[in-house]
Amino acid sequence: MKNHMSDMSPEEVRQLVRKGQMTGPTAGMAASYAQANLVVLQKDLAFDFLLFCQRNQKPCPVLDVTDAGSPVPAIAAPGADIRTDFPKYRIYRHGVLTEEVTDITPYWKDDDVGFLIGCSFSFEQALINQHIPIRHIDEGVNVPMYKTDIDCVPAGPFSGKMVVSMRPIPERLAVRAAQVTSRFPAVHGAPVRIGNPQSIGISDLHQPDFGDAVTVREGEVPVFWACGVTPQAVIMEAKPDIVITHSPGHMLITDIRNESLAVL
Amino acid sequence: MKNHMSDMSPEEVRQLVRKGQMTGPTAGMAASYAQANLVVLQKDLAFDFLLFCQRNQKPCPVLDVTDAGSPVPAIAAPGADIRTDFPKYRIYRHGVLTEEVTDITPYWKDDDVGFLIGCSFSFEQALINQHIPIRHIDEGVNVPMYKTDIDCVPAGPFSGKMVVSMRPIPERLAVRAAQVTSRFPAVHGAPVRIGNPQSIGISDLHQPDFGDAVTVREGEVPVFWACGVTPQAVIMEAKPDIVITHSPGHMLITDIRNESLAVL
Repeated sequence: MKNHMSDMSPEEVRQLVRKGQMTGPTAGMAASYAQANLVVLQKDLAFDFLLFCQRNQKPCPVLDVTDAGSPVPAIAAPGADIRTDFPKYRIYRHGVLTEEVTDITPYWKDDDVGFLIGCSFSFEQALINQHIPIRHIDEGVNVPMYKTDIDCVPAGPFSGKMVVSMRPIPERLAVRAAQVTSRFPAVHGAPVRIGNPQSIGISDLHQPDFGDAVTVREGEVPVFWACGVTPQAVIMEAKPDIVITHSPGHMLITDIRNESLAVL
Repeated sequence: MKNHMSDMSPEEVRQLVRKGQMTGPTAGMAASYAQANLVVLQKDLAFDFLLFCQRNQKPCPVLDVTDAGSPVPAIAAPGADIRTDFPKYRIYRHGVLTEEVTDITPYWKDDDVGFLIGCSFSFEQALINQHIPIRHIDEGVNVPMYKTDIDCVPAGPFSGKMVVSMRPIPERLAVRAAQVTSRFPAVHGAPVRIGNPQSIGISDLHQPDFGDAVTVREGEVPVFWACGVTPQAVIMEAKPDIVITHSPGHMLITDIRNESLAVL
């Protein structure tokens, strides 16, 4: 067994998860590879949700969509099974969390469609590679996330405001952070705003709507990126009969190298 | 009236088209703005086609998708009507071209979904801005297009090979051409291949499958980009009851500035 799960291959991590030997958060595992969020919807809602993602690519960057009834993400991880390879799942009925499980095989239906959504871990790695510090990692907490007053473009029953994540960046590095993350449109891409939280409807940085507050130091500017919590919030508002998501922080390790997601 | 249609606004061109006063090709009109290809499908095929586009973004870059039954592309051109604002349309029944018309209002159905697909005009403008010559423009012909042996990722009934367009580029500028077009993933983006046509199944550059052959000069390398003819070819193979497309070269002028499509 490898000393560090960060050195494992995606398949090695997925095997541990599939066997139930790893049920915790996936941050830092198989570090060069993209991790994916999950949304499972029934086929009748799949077109409108895919359309919502297409219209709101910054908060909803789609890495892969499974064929109806197939649990295999053929593009992102052909050897994976989305019913078993996330460490933890949440089941929502009519917008209410009813169960948290480690295997959704009993819930899987013939017309289910799985959406794998890109995650900020990929661009955080790119920032770290540039020696740009990530405060919530250094402080050992979840990234702070905020509801904004930015409207998503609606599609069918799906509509709502964009949720953003915030990372405090030294002012001299803010432009570099924008450049570096612009290379990765498949995982939220460039920031939506640098500084001035009020301008996007955030009144108090110390009171995030999701995740944990982090320290913003003298000489740092808060930088806001579109966040994958957006599609989840939008789906809950639409209150489908049933929707399955990953549990926060408990992602699928794909076979896609972070660096291969760069457009330049 | 403006001296040159290249200086007109998108809305001005669309008005002329809508009134039937302009029924020709749109190349060069409202030159700073993105032009869009069209595919209209009935709702029951829309999910699989959107999925096909999501899985094959280089040949099928989606700029906008209309809500079922709505002819208004709310993101790309909120003042436009896709039933009247393309100069010419083609109607295909079971994969066979049956009519060419200038107005599809009589054909429009309550559950029709319109897909606006990005077009190479946008990145050609970016190349021209870098003083990289575009041979088929200089020779006054259509861009040469070739079927390759590159498989698209299938989705539902949609599958087939990628079609590419070719532009001969001076060898010293080929890398620059790749860089410049990489900025525009929403309009086919980076080349799929530089040189060696045989490596993607093209046996004779002088015999394009679509469009016209162009001169490749000494010291030039053929550069291949994914082409918007791909989704059309794939749809014809699927032989839906009815599908409506724009006529080749007869595009919609959107309100999206080419330069705003750049990711960097």
